Amino acid sequence: MMMATSSNSMVVNTSFDALSPLKMPTISKFKVGLCQLSVTLDKNQNLMHAKNSIKVAAEQGAKLVVLPEMWNCPYSNDYFAKYAEDFDDKDASLSFSLLSEAASCHGITIVGGSMPEWNNGQLYNTCVFGPDGKLKAKHRKDTFIAGDEPTIVETEMGCIGVGICHDMRFPELALLYRAKGAHMICYPGAFNMSTGELLWELVQRARAADNQIFVATCSPSRDSTGFYKIWGHSSLVAPSGEMIATSGCEETVLVAEIDYSAIELQRHNIPLERQCRRDVYEFIDISEAEP
Amino acid sequence: MMMATSSNSMVVNTSFDALSPLKMPTISKFKVGLCQLSVTLDKNQNLMHAKNSIKVAAEQGAKLVVLPEMWNCPYSNDYFAKYAEDFDDKDASLSFSLLSEAASCHGITIVGGSMPEWNNGQLYNTCVFGPDGKLKAKHRKDTFIAGDEPTIVETEMGCIGVGICHDMRFPELALLYRAKGAHMICYPGAFNMSTGELLWELVQRARAADNQIFVATCSPSRDSTGFYKIWGHSSLVAPSGEMIATSGCEETVLVAEIDYSAIELQRHNIPLERQCRRDVYEFIDISEAEP
Repeated sequence: MMMATSSNSMVVNTSFDALSPLKMPTISKFKVGLCQLSVTLDKNQNLMHAKNSIKVAAEQGAKLVVLPEMWNCPYSNDYFAKYAEDFDDKDASLSFSLLSEAASCHGITIVGGSMPEWNNGQLYNTCVFGPDGKLKAKHRKDTFIAGDEPTIVETEMGCIGVGICHDMRFPELALLYRAKGAHMICYPGAFNMSTGELLWELVQRARAADNQIFVATCSPSRDSTGFYKIWGHSSLVAPSGEMIATSGCEETVLVAEIDYSAIELQRHNIPLERQCRRDVYEFIDISEAEP
Repeated sequence: MMMATSSNSMVVNTSFDALSPLKMPTISKFKVGLCQLSVTLDKNQNLMHAKNSIKVAAEQGAKLVVLPEMWNCPYSNDYFAKYAEDFDDKDASLSFSLLSEAASCHGITIVGGSMPEWNNGQLYNTCVFGPDGKLKAKHRKDTFIAGDEPTIVETEMGCIGVGICHDMRFPELALLYRAKGAHMICYPGAFNMSTGELLWELVQRARAADNQIFVATCSPSRDSTGFYKIWGHSSLVAPSGEMIATSGCEETVLVAEIDYSAIELQRHNIPLERQCRRDVYEFIDISEAEP
């Protein structure tokens, strides 16, 4: 124990966990489906699109399906409130029910992209997990809204960290997920044309290579309605930083294979975590802070 | 003040410094020269090459010149000891003298790449700064060798962080330099053909974009003698993550312009440091540790 000058919360050092061997899930080799959906003004149509795309992915063998950011609502401040649902009122939350039913119907895990949610009269950009029909975790965009937590979920398909869109730009969040034992980070996102071309591939490949984990991104397709033109290019990146599969800008369901043994291989070949200078710089997690 | 469980050194929190405005150097717009040298078995030839290339860069207006990793010695364990110099013995250290004289002769700052150095009977991979003929700092590769420190130097050309080759792969080191007020990180490096193609551009652009700073890399040219074929592609990257200038694989002197106002502009437009969730994750510098 030692003293440190810092903010007013307890500092918990998680970095040493990163040096313990990665725990492997029961299923370590499986297919992931990325549903790059075209989002319209018609919410019902968006829901049908999502339902069908999840089915297509499941029929192609995907055991994990990822949806885009704002898949049920045009990406625009003008629409978020109108399309928002209250997830606590299951009967009135069509999107929530759809994901829950699709997960149990196909027996798959779903990273439900993001949807606008009303919660205590406030509008949140929220993300839902639903494997076997049950909600596993919610994630709220880590940046912009103080007080929300990083989301890392133990699933049958491994330990998955979730970030939304702009969260991709923060190496700190990805470092945190690595330290907590993530096999994969899923980023539903909707970059625009300029940040898309410049940064979309760059940051997801960097998060994967730096942390030697899988990274999956899922975007709406370019023809989606909204505030700006969307880059698209939903992708799966290997722990080496190599692009395993990437889509174009049109609506599509991209199915690709994940094999977590690639994480072990990559870390064995280039042991970045062991080489990292813990005596010089230290990354700490204060999300588990105690008052 | 609070308590934290950590290693046996004092934890110093530097992240809040990152929120204070960036200090601008007197000279904030200048040319940098990246000397992508062809390294041979002939040490004297390597020295002449370096001398001439620094002159070419200076004549093109470069006020900061960066040399490659191992510019005076083939990149191979077979040669490091043979080519090493003792920098404390100025008369016997031809490479050290060359850099010192070139800096004062042209009135420029030189990030002297890396050279093998004998120090207390141990062989180090060492890097030298010499503006106006004076040694400003040494840097030893941060990974692999415990006990050495990150190197960040106040120069007329701004606050420069230095990393060597594999150091590029660690987002933590770059985060540390940002927190310490760096305008730029220089990475002399020599990636091989496979890591070069996959990661060289990726990691340098990610370090720049994530930290909204300039990044310069300098590699030997591909035809250099050594243990493996070298990727080349010395580059300058903007704080947006955009590639400003990059070379091919052949011997060349790349001169490009740096304007630090681009850092302020980038941070104003996308205030990543303010958006970063300091309440959730925290990056700490223990290099200034007190026992």
